[in-house]
Amino acid sequence: MAGEQPAYRRVADQLRRLILSGELAEGTRLPSLREIATQYGVAVSIATRALDVLRADGLVMARPGAGTYVRRFERIVRSSPGRLARDHWGGGAAIQDHDTGPRVRAVDIVIGDAPASAFVAEALGIEPGTPVLTRSRRFVVEGRAVQLSTSYLPRELTRGTRIEHTDAGEGGTYARLAEQGLALTHFTERIVGRSPLPEEASALDLLADGARILEITRLAYAEDRCVEVNRMVLDSDAYELTYSFPS
Amino acid sequence: MAGEQPAYRRVADQLRRLILSGELAEGTRLPSLREIATQYGVAVSIATRALDVLRADGLVMARPGAGTYVRRFERIVRSSPGRLARDHWGGGAAIQDHDTGPRVRAVDIVIGDAPASAFVAEALGIEPGTPVLTRSRRFVVEGRAVQLSTSYLPRELTRGTRIEHTDAGEGGTYARLAEQGLALTHFTERIVGRSPLPEEASALDLLADGARILEITRLAYAEDRCVEVNRMVLDSDAYELTYSFPS
Repeated sequence: MAGEQPAYRRVADQLRRLILSGELAEGTRLPSLREIATQYGVAVSIATRALDVLRADGLVMARPGAGTYVRRFERIVRSSPGRLARDHWGGGAAIQDHDTGPRVRAVDIVIGDAPASAFVAEALGIEPGTPVLTRSRRFVVEGRAVQLSTSYLPRELTRGTRIEHTDAGEGGTYARLAEQGLALTHFTERIVGRSPLPEEASALDLLADGARILEITRLAYAEDRCVEVNRMVLDSDAYELTYSFPS
Repeated sequence: MAGEQPAYRRVADQLRRLILSGELAEGTRLPSLREIATQYGVAVSIATRALDVLRADGLVMARPGAGTYVRRFERIVRSSPGRLARDHWGGGAAIQDHDTGPRVRAVDIVIGDAPASAFVAEALGIEPGTPVLTRSRRFVVEGRAVQLSTSYLPRELTRGTRIEHTDAGEGGTYARLAEQGLALTHFTERIVGRSPLPEEASALDLLADGARILEITRLAYAEDRCVEVNRMVLDSDAYELTYSFPS
């Protein structure tokens, strides 16, 4: 990476500066590829790659047939353990409320079942292939799809409870588990940054090549027993994660 | 993103499959751009973009003038709070030992000082611009540059101690602070995924456009007092982060 930057990177850096400084404001339509190419003295293919970079960085979005627009977005602050503290969900609140506060949010929830994968089965202490309940959610904040989340729970803990309804009731799944004597005591979260799979990119409207996601795999424990596996896919540019922990 | 994948993405996916299946093994030289173009029936510019995707994913690396090679790498598991537990550094171990175990590792350490930025000053409770000690490290694991890390500490805590030496002694900086009655009690870490700055890309040998880093900002506390700010830049493809925490 020593030496000269490639031309598309130089063009991307200059446009990025205009966006971050506010000269190109939120919602502004960018000049056309041909205009950018002329303005910076590069080929249209170079201008195309420059916009690919900005899309990957989440600074602009393409509206098919209508051009490319500046899209800034204040990162969602996702604070652990606060968001998963018992006095939060125990008080009836939704975990995502802790993250987004009053920001406009929409959630699609789909309840289903699936045979447990080897990973899910091992975590939950059941045989691979055993049907487990799935709660799949897609979160949209201020019009931007930001997260996919699928929980996997043993059927014996969900059957006949509101966990099998899209609206699991006050405090959600964790409050329902607590009512069965399985109040959660601790969690582990594993975070990996990677490229999205095609279906993830599609569901999160990640238009550009080079977009990245954070995959978070959470295991939720009631004492020694893991009672839920949750696999989340977050638009990397939409979040910051914070963790507090003792020495 | 609905519908057909772009051609470069399709080519990248097929090459990725060959790498992940081991058909293209670690260290193998990839076919030339022209050969890839011919093989997949696409333009050379499409083959170029496909390799950009694989480089961004950390699956291949370019050796200037010598072609592109398969480079796989087992992610480093960075486990909190275990790596920062008092019984770890208190026992004389280096924190990074917890992450990499016996894997071959090299570290460059540079000691310096710098005026405290607004962020560092506020965290440490000092005036912006006050000189603070900086310990800047660059970690290389199995020949791959994986992390940059800079600690900022108030000079009053470091003056005349081994914290001002590149080798801070057994247990490192945290053991030296404990000897002054400032044993660390807790930490916060803030994680953001983003594109690298040019100097970060250069220091981490991130060759391709689209590479991503995880920026981790840690505040280390002795009771109520923040005594260290540590800003880390991790090659996103080289790490997985895990956190354990109570409900």
